Amino acid sequence: MKFTASQIAAAVGGTVEGDADVAVSTFAKIEEATPEALTFLANPKYNHCIYDTQAGIVLVRRDFVPEHPVRATLVRVDDPYATLSHLLQMVDAAVNVRPTGVEQPSFVADGVELPEGAYVGAFSYIGAGVRMGRNVKIYPQAYVGAGVTIGDDTVIYPGARIYHGCRIGARCIIHAGAVIGADGFGFAPTADGSYSKIPQLGIVEIADDVEIGANTTVDRATMGRTAIGQGTKLDNLIQVGHNAEIGTNTVMAAQCGIAGSTHVGSNCMFGGQVGLAGHISVGDNVQIGAQSGIPGNVESGARIIGSPAVPFGDFARQAVYVKRLGDVFSRLSALEKEIKKQTP
Amino acid sequence: MKFTASQIAAAVGGTVEGDADVAVSTFAKIEEATPEALTFLANPKYNHCIYDTQAGIVLVRRDFVPEHPVRATLVRVDDPYATLSHLLQMVDAAVNVRPTGVEQPSFVADGVELPEGAYVGAFSYIGAGVRMGRNVKIYPQAYVGAGVTIGDDTVIYPGARIYHGCRIGARCIIHAGAVIGADGFGFAPTADGSYSKIPQLGIVEIADDVEIGANTTVDRATMGRTAIGQGTKLDNLIQVGHNAEIGTNTVMAAQCGIAGSTHVGSNCMFGGQVGLAGHISVGDNVQIGAQSGIPGNVESGARIIGSPAVPFGDFARQAVYVKRLGDVFSRLSALEKEIKKQTP
Amino acid sequence: MKFTASQIAAAVGGTVEGDADVAVSTFAKIEEATPEALTFLANPKYNHCIYDTQAGIVLVRRDFVPEHPVRATLVRVDDPYATLSHLLQMVDAAVNVRPTGVEQPSFVADGVELPEGAYVGAFSYIGAGVRMGRNVKIYPQAYVGAGVTIGDDTVIYPGARIYHGCRIGARCIIHAGAVIGADGFGFAPTADGSYSKIPQLGIVEIADDVEIGANTTVDRATMGRTAIGQGTKLDNLIQVGHNAEIGTNTVMAAQCGIAGSTHVGSNCMFGGQVGLAGHISVGDNVQIGAQSGIPGNVESGARIIGSPAVPFGDFARQAVYVKRLGDVFSRLSALEKEIKKQTP
Repeated sequence: MKFTASQIAAAVGGTVEGDADVAVSTFAKIEEATPEALTFLANPKYNHCIYDTQAGIVLVRRDFVPEHPVRATLVRVDDPYATLSHLLQMVDAAVNVRPTGVEQPSFVADGVELPEGAYVGAFSYIGAGVRMGRNVKIYPQAYVGAGVTIGDDTVIYPGARIYHGCRIGARCIIHAGAVIGADGFGFAPTADGSYSKIPQLGIVEIADDVEIGANTTVDRATMGRTAIGQGTKLDNLIQVGHNAEIGTNTVMAAQCGIAGSTHVGSNCMFGGQVGLAGHISVGDNVQIGAQSGIPGNVESGARIIGSPAVPFGDFARQAVYVKRLGDVFSRLSALEKEIKKQTP
Repeated sequence: MKFTASQIAAAVGGTVEGDADVAVSTFAKIEEATPEALTFLANPKYNHCIYDTQAGIVLVRRDFVPEHPVRATLVRVDDPYATLSHLLQMVDAAVNVRPTGVEQPSFVADGVELPEGAYVGAFSYIGAGVRMGRNVKIYPQAYVGAGVTIGDDTVIYPGARIYHGCRIGARCIIHAGAVIGADGFGFAPTADGSYSKIPQLGIVEIADDVEIGANTTVDRATMGRTAIGQGTKLDNLIQVGHNAEIGTNTVMAAQCGIAGSTHVGSNCMFGGQVGLAGHISVGDNVQIGAQSGIPGNVESGARIIGSPAVPFGDFARQAVYVKRLGDVFSRLSALEKEIKKQTP
Repeated sequence: MKFTASQIAAAVGGTVEGDADVAVSTFAKIEEATPEALTFLANPKYNHCIYDTQAGIVLVRRDFVPEHPVRATLVRVDDPYATLSHLLQMVDAAVNVRPTGVEQPSFVADGVELPEGAYVGAFSYIGAGVRMGRNVKIYPQAYVGAGVTIGDDTVIYPGARIYHGCRIGARCIIHAGAVIGADGFGFAPTADGSYSKIPQLGIVEIADDVEIGANTTVDRATMGRTAIGQGTKLDNLIQVGHNAEIGTNTVMAAQCGIAGSTHVGSNCMFGGQVGLAGHISVGDNVQIGAQSGIPGNVESGARIIGSPAVPFGDFARQAVYVKRLGDVFSRLSALEKEIKKQTP
């Protein structure tokens, strides 16, 4: 399928500048675009790319003023990135049509009702008492344990595992290999040095609009629930311990680890490989830099980094100071020598 | 099912204080408990919660002396946490009855004998020559490669993978997505800069009473074995490299990485995201704080943290010193100025 | 099977010293070897082990001169480690014969052709339009999404998942639980604080001779591709973000994280748990120590470590300085006291 600049402008409420009949069939980054591609310019850092780009069409801000001639056709919009995202969603909806129906062989326990629009892929397992909303898509080889509930329009990708009793909201996406509801890591030490397993009888409760990355693990609670709030997005290979609770619209990059019983607020942003100790509380709107270690409570609005984490500014200053430590020792020695000389 | 305070006290050897007929049907944390819930008070830090709790019954120490009136019925026991764990185990045994029998379709290679009490879930794969002990539970979509042996009462959760030839002890729990026996990471550099794969012909040997977390990976040895000792517990997303050996009753929190050929002793405790270099030796009873990096050997009994790790006390002191580094530079400058002034 | 020292020497072009009729049936490390085992001595650090080893045969350098009597039969070769690797490959080829044919039940979409020598394990899923080269081995419970292409002789281990449209080269090995082509982590913030998903319409392209470790995740690109170059080896539990590109013959140890749009060059070596920020560029022949954090671009040939990373030498010096910080404060105080005394 090809779309012309005028068709695209009409679809997104933009205005065309240049050849309105130029047609594109794909998307690309501005520095890799071919004449068949649409691209976008949002970050002024990349402004220079627009003069060399091979792209057929570039989405730009309405107030963008080129400093040199631009060969590509421009489509002016309010927010090029949001418009691109919107176009990608339109293409995605057209191209990636979700399957429907039941592939065989699959395992659906007796009494489970398959809702309207559902997909059950081959080799997927739907345990006893599972309840699914409309248009739920269970891809091949996924596991949905006994008594699990899944809201409307949720997608469970191949090989994701949801242990018994967990609750998944509507419009969630659970990627391949994610494990929801495995036992929390709880053991009581015994007198002989061995450990006695503490049964994990709680569940995991995932609210609506949550995305869980590939091979991420969210453990079930000892008692009660481990909870992920609405709109929260977890990247790949993240660990969420038992009885942890995460608020709404919080995003965590890959390989973060949230230890058990820790509470994280809403609208937080964590870089990759961040670790949070157990039984602590992190407020709302907290930003944590990559690889940080968080040993204790964090107030709302904090912006911290490091292990143990400190405010961003302090971290940068500390790094500079540490680099100059050699200097400290030589200055100290010089002073000591000088003092000695002066001492009668 | 409901149980009264007097029934519970009888089951655990406790004494009732308050209404012996109060009945509960669930467990909860003390701050979240409802009147239908039993809870416990073990950590004195939470003593204040007992005066407000809505719980029907609270397990407390025999010597606990309330400072204010308590509405809940108390059941006094020697060790409230151990008693809770015991009660949870009783409920778990009653509620989570393990399945038995063979679900179809599943794949069991010719000649494999299914022992008494075994469960083979749908879409699980049991390769040629596999030997399983009594009551082994293979959940759906698990993979047990050729020649694997599994001891009595071991549970393999959905989608866990055990490569050919590995040995799993009795009473082990292998969680979903864990991979036991994938190739160790071994390559020999060649003259042209590419790498030649070194075949990994060894196995993984897991002793009795081991728990392996979700999506944890334990690589097979190049030659010989990668070994996990009896009673050791590994949390989720941990990496154990080829030919590593871990002793007995050692516990590691999520996302730790143990590089190849490293030996870890018994009764160790590692926080999350700890990394150990390859070919090193860590003694017994070693405690390592979260996110630590261990570049070399560690003596038995050490308590270390940091990257590279130092004793706990040194780490705390270093953190304080680093925070005060700005001070060092200003004091140095002041001294230099003063000296200069004094120098004739 | 047993082989004598003279048979082995003939196979690898070595010369025998000692009993040429000694026969071995297995491999072992020098300190663990039994009389039935062949071992090797490559690293002079382990020279002392040769006088005590129980091994039947030891591969040694042609110029090795024992300082004490050696009981084992020696086979002298140019490069003992490379020779061992070669012997392991010969045994591997003899012992681990790859299966061929289609196990049932498996799912192969209509129209997909199974090439010569292919293996399709039970419960594996081959989507519509998949194209596979000769001798491709798809182990049980693996998922190959619609439109995926796989080159000759590639092995996909149990439960690996390759999302639709991705391209895998020839002679690759994808280990159990690896996820290739899950959605990149891309969301656009909206006015109400929630996030709008940016569809990920690109693919993952893996060149020839690549090995991907167990439970490693490589995300599909937003637009275009996430690329792994020829001969590159990724260990277990690694995260590669969307639109990242990795060059040829680069090796990364377990649990590394490469954020989105970052480029890594060729012939690099990364230790475990290294994290790279997004949108940065790392040159060729770069060596990065374990647990390092890389916030910005890195020049070719750099050897760095730490978080944030600095050259290896600086890191060692900084560690020493930080250990001596207590000293700094006491010397400063002494100087201040002395100065005060001197000040009239």
